[in-house]
Amino acid sequence: MTIKNKFYRYIQDLQDTITSKLEEVDTLANFKEDLWERPEGGGGRTRVIQNGAVFEKGGVNISAVHGELPHSMQAYFGVTDANFFACGLSLVIHPKNPYVPTVHANWRYFEMYDKQGAIVDQWFGGGQDLTPYYLFEADATHFHTICKKACDAHDTTFYPQYKQKCDDYFWNSHRNEARGIGGLFFDYLKASEGRSMQDWYDFVTEVGNSFLEAYIPIVIKRKDLDFNTSNRNWQEIRRGRYVEFNLVHDKGTLFGLRTNGRIESILMSLPPHVQWQYNHQPVKGSEEEKLVEVLKNPKAWV
Amino acid sequence: MTIKNKFYRYIQDLQDTITSKLEEVDTLANFKEDLWERPEGGGGRTRVIQNGAVFEKGGVNISAVHGELPHSMQAYFGVTDANFFACGLSLVIHPKNPYVPTVHANWRYFEMYDKQGAIVDQWFGGGQDLTPYYLFEADATHFHTICKKACDAHDTTFYPQYKQKCDDYFWNSHRNEARGIGGLFFDYLKASEGRSMQDWYDFVTEVGNSFLEAYIPIVIKRKDLDFNTSNRNWQEIRRGRYVEFNLVHDKGTLFGLRTNGRIESILMSLPPHVQWQYNHQPVKGSEEEKLVEVLKNPKAWV
Repeated sequence: MTIKNKFYRYIQDLQDTITSKLEEVDTLANFKEDLWERPEGGGGRTRVIQNGAVFEKGGVNISAVHGELPHSMQAYFGVTDANFFACGLSLVIHPKNPYVPTVHANWRYFEMYDKQGAIVDQWFGGGQDLTPYYLFEADATHFHTICKKACDAHDTTFYPQYKQKCDDYFWNSHRNEARGIGGLFFDYLKASEGRSMQDWYDFVTEVGNSFLEAYIPIVIKRKDLDFNTSNRNWQEIRRGRYVEFNLVHDKGTLFGLRTNGRIESILMSLPPHVQWQYNHQPVKGSEEEKLVEVLKNPKAWV
Repeated sequence: MTIKNKFYRYIQDLQDTITSKLEEVDTLANFKEDLWERPEGGGGRTRVIQNGAVFEKGGVNISAVHGELPHSMQAYFGVTDANFFACGLSLVIHPKNPYVPTVHANWRYFEMYDKQGAIVDQWFGGGQDLTPYYLFEADATHFHTICKKACDAHDTTFYPQYKQKCDDYFWNSHRNEARGIGGLFFDYLKASEGRSMQDWYDFVTEVGNSFLEAYIPIVIKRKDLDFNTSNRNWQEIRRGRYVEFNLVHDKGTLFGLRTNGRIESILMSLPPHVQWQYNHQPVKGSEEEKLVEVLKNPKAWV
């Protein structure tokens, strides 16, 4: 089987595995599925959970699209007259309890073809990252430890590299702070002398397979903690920063909005209830301030 | 007095007039004032009201900034080595009651200088527009009638022109709908054969003076209407579209975020409580659907 078919099969299975596990943890809500087609070629399977016992809103979406490379992307990649295929799984989970972090993950594969249909370029990209509203250092360390383990199985230089890329990418520059406490981010993983596309496939699927192990234990540990209105307000204010990142800075979101992507699948990443208060500042010495300190100064977790 | 000094004095007075009137209508909350300075020159007076009886969140801000034209603006205006002065009043008011529309207005003046300090360009810009959550045609007509009256006092070609520009500018292209029911939008109002800067000053201040007459009667008429949770949810979902416009499309907001503007003054425009539900669709034949119909097909109100 080609890498392309193998990876597409993989993300279909992974979507099933992840949505089943999240439903099992939630106990109340189920994912609703929407199949959609892209007029220019391909489509997707969007699965959204809302108003669960644990998960207030979340989406675990796959898509596989192909056709002529859109003009905006031709300019971006510096090519003309190319065709493409892209598939990937994207997920964002917004839990109800402010002590449970939001999580985002994405694993994707891209192929570009010349007019004769020959592959002229191909690469993997993706990653996973955590956005807590309250900082439990043990949770951050756990998440990063699992990320590192998945990386180390392939190359011990990967984790420090992709951890750094994650901190750089999810930087809310207009706030001078990180979106969350990071994880992994990688892109343009291409075949090179020492590494085949099959090697990258093995790496990216290893990260994909690590997702539930990285996230679920944190959910289980924090989902039943008591919280009050003030904790909830803080969560909603911080979710505002999540919206700001996704709408102002996130390349994937902006690309989708500008190329006529399926809006509801793209914007399922936005949190369900959000607040913007003017000039809100956490109280000195509070747990809220402790989080902001770490977001302003990303640190090494393992 | 120069146009620049006259207009700066004007927006200071207008800020007082508008905030006093809004406080009088609200009866409960007062504006809190923040003075801020721009390290590179100038500063502003931000006034924010929160948790009022009528106004859930709103800002009426003035600023007057000057210095070297930032690099991003040099490129935008196609000049090098220029200095600038810009002052303006910006307001966004988010009422609590879903039957009272959100309003936005802005009136601004810009001067550009060569290195010898001579004015090489100068213009006015601004406008005012209404974003209802429920459509009362009488309110839309009232708002546009006042806009038209202010325009007609100067030139009967202004209203149709600036009404159209407003519909074009506040277009949420990724949703294929308008942000609201429009009003006026104008920019680069420069001296020309038939019209001096003083003429434009007279026009822009006429629009500024019309603001309270355009908005307040609508607030008075709708602020005590009964509403339920479902009306409130709809308002919060529609506020999500407001956020999307401001963060994805609004040139002023993006310019501020990219040029190190005062974040809290820029983002005071974002609504206090906002929702994103996956693929929310108004019920067929409902009042909610009636609004969306008009947003998708902007119409003539006078």
